[in-house]
Amino acid sequence: MTDIVDWVAVDWGTSNLRAWGIAADGSVALERHSDRGMGRLTRDQFPAALNGLLEDVKGARSGPLDVLICGMAGARQGWLEAPYLVAPTDLRALLASAVRPDMPDGRLAPSILPGVCQKAGADNVMRGEETQLLGLAATQPGFSGMVCMPGTHSKWAELAGSRIERFSTAMTGELYEVLRTHSVLRHSLTGDLDGPGRAEGFALGAQAGLDHPDKLLGTLFQVRAGALLSDRQPDWCAGYLSGLLIGTEIGGNRHLIGQAAVPLIGASALCALYAQVLAMIGATGVPHDSTAIVLAGLKAARSYAA
Amino acid sequence: MTDIVDWVAVDWGTSNLRAWGIAADGSVALERHSDRGMGRLTRDQFPAALNGLLEDVKGARSGPLDVLICGMAGARQGWLEAPYLVAPTDLRALLASAVRPDMPDGRLAPSILPGVCQKAGADNVMRGEETQLLGLAATQPGFSGMVCMPGTHSKWAELAGSRIERFSTAMTGELYEVLRTHSVLRHSLTGDLDGPGRAEGFALGAQAGLDHPDKLLGTLFQVRAGALLSDRQPDWCAGYLSGLLIGTEIGGNRHLIGQAAVPLIGASALCALYAQVLAMIGATGVPHDSTAIVLAGLKAARSYAA
Repeated sequence: MTDIVDWVAVDWGTSNLRAWGIAADGSVALERHSDRGMGRLTRDQFPAALNGLLEDVKGARSGPLDVLICGMAGARQGWLEAPYLVAPTDLRALLASAVRPDMPDGRLAPSILPGVCQKAGADNVMRGEETQLLGLAATQPGFSGMVCMPGTHSKWAELAGSRIERFSTAMTGELYEVLRTHSVLRHSLTGDLDGPGRAEGFALGAQAGLDHPDKLLGTLFQVRAGALLSDRQPDWCAGYLSGLLIGTEIGGNRHLIGQAAVPLIGASALCALYAQVLAMIGATGVPHDSTAIVLAGLKAARSYAA
Repeated sequence: MTDIVDWVAVDWGTSNLRAWGIAADGSVALERHSDRGMGRLTRDQFPAALNGLLEDVKGARSGPLDVLICGMAGARQGWLEAPYLVAPTDLRALLASAVRPDMPDGRLAPSILPGVCQKAGADNVMRGEETQLLGLAATQPGFSGMVCMPGTHSKWAELAGSRIERFSTAMTGELYEVLRTHSVLRHSLTGDLDGPGRAEGFALGAQAGLDHPDKLLGTLFQVRAGALLSDRQPDWCAGYLSGLLIGTEIGGNRHLIGQAAVPLIGASALCALYAQVLAMIGATGVPHDSTAIVLAGLKAARSYAA
């Protein structure tokens, strides 16, 4: 079976590779995905990975098929480095700064969008999230304010239309994983982590984090002490740790959030937890489907051709 | 060779076992140490470990030789659980709450001192540090104020003479290790970590932690971003991470510290780093030799027999 498309949108992350064939009317004509993320590939394996994923896809016009890529494929350790735009910057400039890696045959014409960095004493980087932010700007015209993208490394960005003013990265998800797996807390986090105590632990941990975001190094140990002294079970401890970290993240950004409606872009279960904690400070989390947002961002980036 | 002593002081931690034979005049007649810490022993191996360490040691009097033990030997997963005293409490009561494990022969008469716990919504535990705190109280009569015990799990205790009013535990040292070893930051922390950039990184990280202890989840990522964007080397990154964590720990306790002289009990290199950061907020760190302090604590505990 051959699929005919106008161009191909690609989100090439560390762990996953996802592609959408876009028809002439802008609809999604086909989807492809594989586990050949940047982290599993050497530099010279990228062309074959892309060709393999799209081998049965044909362009509607003669000549090479445009493939627009965002994400870690453009990292220094990826396929071809796409140098960062420097925030503050207008994300409509993404395509004008894309890099174009060579392909062994002329069938596909890939472009890789740049990430965004921040310097001047607040060093930070993103790759992939900038395209989601442009997608949010495209689907919510006129939006200005804080956007939260929960995940392994949560991004908080201040958006003004299609401009990204500044951003930060919280290592919340990764800290949960390394503490659960490698720290003394693991003794309290072995067993059924999704039992009925999880919700109570989450609420208490989130409140502790919101109340005292400056005390994280100390409150973390209460996961262990609670298990030793108060017979807290693994589900409660997992909820407490998760709530404590998310509460601390949101508590540390409270002055930037106020009581706004905060767009949340990420996995839906995680966005629901962030929305719960945002509600505890009188703000509102508004979940967005991350696949729809990244696709909107790739379409928007393409629409702002130089 | 046989050594004749009045009694034996023992610090039995997770990783190490240390013993001092105390002569009738209170001086240290002999020292022994081994790596047979609590973490390496099953419950039934403790008697032989103690007998082996002290096999050539004889008491000055007839009858069993008193051995006074502090530390993790009294943990639930240790030799024999010594139930916690509950803070606030007077540490002169340690010996009265000791437990006395059986020995296969009657040559040694061990007593294990309890740890101290804290409940009522601020669950916390210590084992070993309470004896050091009593040692500090004995060597600094009349001292009242915050005491810091830097380490894998740093303890901060509010002492009033021999009373411990309340305490907290910061997972600072352990967080440094798990982030260095298991997180994305490891990519920036491989190589020579003790180069000349370490001191500059430490000072900058400490200032960031002191300025914004509520931002730790975000500033942690700057270790990685600084390596990617500003070509920060592994020594700088290691210093920054260390400074950031210690600065955050001290920054989060700033309201309790003020500009006091804070006794520091721990490894001397680590205490020097804490003293450097305390000086940045106008306080003073006063290092104490941890071996001398634990020995003073065991002597003091013995002197307050029930």
